[in-house]
Amino acid sequence: MIVVLTGGTGGAKFVQGLEQVVPAAQITTVVNTGDDLNWWGLHVSPDLDSITYAMAGLLSRERGWGVEGDTFNCLQVIARLGAPTWFHLGDRDLAVHLVRTQLLGQGKTLTEATEMITRQFDIASRVLPMTDTIVQTRVITPTGELSFQEYFVRERWQPEATGVRFIGSESARPAAGVLEAIHKADAVVIAPSNPVTSVGPILAVPGIREELRETSAPVVAVSPIVGGAAVSGPAGKLMQSQGLPVSIDGVARAYADFLDALIIDEMDAGGASGVESLGIALSVTNTIMQTSSDKEALARTALSAARAVKK
Amino acid sequence: MIVVLTGGTGGAKFVQGLEQVVPAAQITTVVNTGDDLNWWGLHVSPDLDSITYAMAGLLSRERGWGVEGDTFNCLQVIARLGAPTWFHLGDRDLAVHLVRTQLLGQGKTLTEATEMITRQFDIASRVLPMTDTIVQTRVITPTGELSFQEYFVRERWQPEATGVRFIGSESARPAAGVLEAIHKADAVVIAPSNPVTSVGPILAVPGIREELRETSAPVVAVSPIVGGAAVSGPAGKLMQSQGLPVSIDGVARAYADFLDALIIDEMDAGGASGVESLGIALSVTNTIMQTSSDKEALARTALSAARAVKK
Repeated sequence: MIVVLTGGTGGAKFVQGLEQVVPAAQITTVVNTGDDLNWWGLHVSPDLDSITYAMAGLLSRERGWGVEGDTFNCLQVIARLGAPTWFHLGDRDLAVHLVRTQLLGQGKTLTEATEMITRQFDIASRVLPMTDTIVQTRVITPTGELSFQEYFVRERWQPEATGVRFIGSESARPAAGVLEAIHKADAVVIAPSNPVTSVGPILAVPGIREELRETSAPVVAVSPIVGGAAVSGPAGKLMQSQGLPVSIDGVARAYADFLDALIIDEMDAGGASGVESLGIALSVTNTIMQTSSDKEALARTALSAARAVKK
Repeated sequence: MIVVLTGGTGGAKFVQGLEQVVPAAQITTVVNTGDDLNWWGLHVSPDLDSITYAMAGLLSRERGWGVEGDTFNCLQVIARLGAPTWFHLGDRDLAVHLVRTQLLGQGKTLTEATEMITRQFDIASRVLPMTDTIVQTRVITPTGELSFQEYFVRERWQPEATGVRFIGSESARPAAGVLEAIHKADAVVIAPSNPVTSVGPILAVPGIREELRETSAPVVAVSPIVGGAAVSGPAGKLMQSQGLPVSIDGVARAYADFLDALIIDEMDAGGASGVESLGIALSVTNTIMQTSSDKEALARTALSAARAVKK
């Protein structure tokens, strides 16, 4: 069993590659829910949805989120009705949020709701939210705190980030199955997701970081930083806010207490000495996933790196 | 001010005609909410929506409900997720239900939510739900009770109806503004809607029927029965379940205690003697609204009939 800790965009691409290498039934994803939001009265879980759509073959290639070929007709009328529209939901996408919101309203956990939704999409892998309790990622800026989506989507990550916090994380518990999955895994992969606001919330749920240290499974991360900058999104800015260098060194330091191996891009092969001094093995490959075979090759490299770990 | 008591389909066409004859700002509709349902977790008010879309110029001409040219992409994914789909909501239509559900969840009344929605659509007329409390129309059949939408949409009004009841009507109160509107009206028109399950729930809200009797405004109804059958839908079957003949006589009897004048179709001009013996004036015209000028002419006839009433 391969366990992947992941956010949305980069992680969704990574699991698409992994599915080409191992049967989907042998994959468990543990997904960030710190970005979840109540939008138009619905419980939206952007990262869970990206992983679900990726696994169902529905993820929009062009946008990297939402459903391929989706329409936005509801959004247009919502705008006319004066409701906020800075966060876009497609018409097909809405179905998932409507069903999830109803299931939660009926008392189901987010884990149960996700299980029902992924089953209906004939997804053979297991998709787990990091927690069933509410953890909210907040980005601290000089003019006040923003929810992650306010910072990322509404403000297009332009405000200066001076810090990040995860409201509710102290009392959160890992969702049912998360710790067991990590404990019994053949390998754990940290997807090429933002270390601060995609993987960070997962690690902030008490028990998960500890289990990553204790598991006998090799723990491998794919660096989302290439050539001193994030492949996409605000990972660089947010790493700086945490005092982490925007480099593979910064990624290694974010995970140093549990990481066995780090997959870095060819572009970063020169500046790797600091990582190995932390006792973390390095694998160098192309980490930019543009094609289906890029994704597959990266997944193979991650699994090879895991197999090479001596624990 | 013209007050129209109305359901969805026929009433929506009627108010489109009325808008051609009097300024929209002089029209108040009092709309049936006995058909409202919770669908996909949203508060759906089919008749309020039909009237709103009619007033906004958005009503689908082909379907007679929902938004013209709407898509059903959300519905398709909802079906894949295993949720019930016998009641169809279009993607644009969903926007109204999402906004309404949020407003109600924030503690707004249905009247307030409707006022906000119609204002956003630049509707100059006043659209009032009959009540802000829950009244549910139930159709009694030999095999059990059905909600109105289960009977009408899911079962396509095929089960035998042995009766109708309006759960919650005893303790319901007219929505703010309803009684005042009827009291101060220059004319009240009962739209060509189903007397049992469209107008019936409105009349079942304590105080409304009494105000129709007491108002000094002339009260005129347009018969939804033409040639011994309903123009559309199950009005005939449901009138029979109430012991009413499926004829203009049956319509007159349903409203006899407050009705001053009844507009009937040319086809029924021969069988009208029973109605006049109830003290109800008759106007004969074409009541089938196929074109815009049909609608306008019918509205003119209704207003003329109102003006002719001596009270």
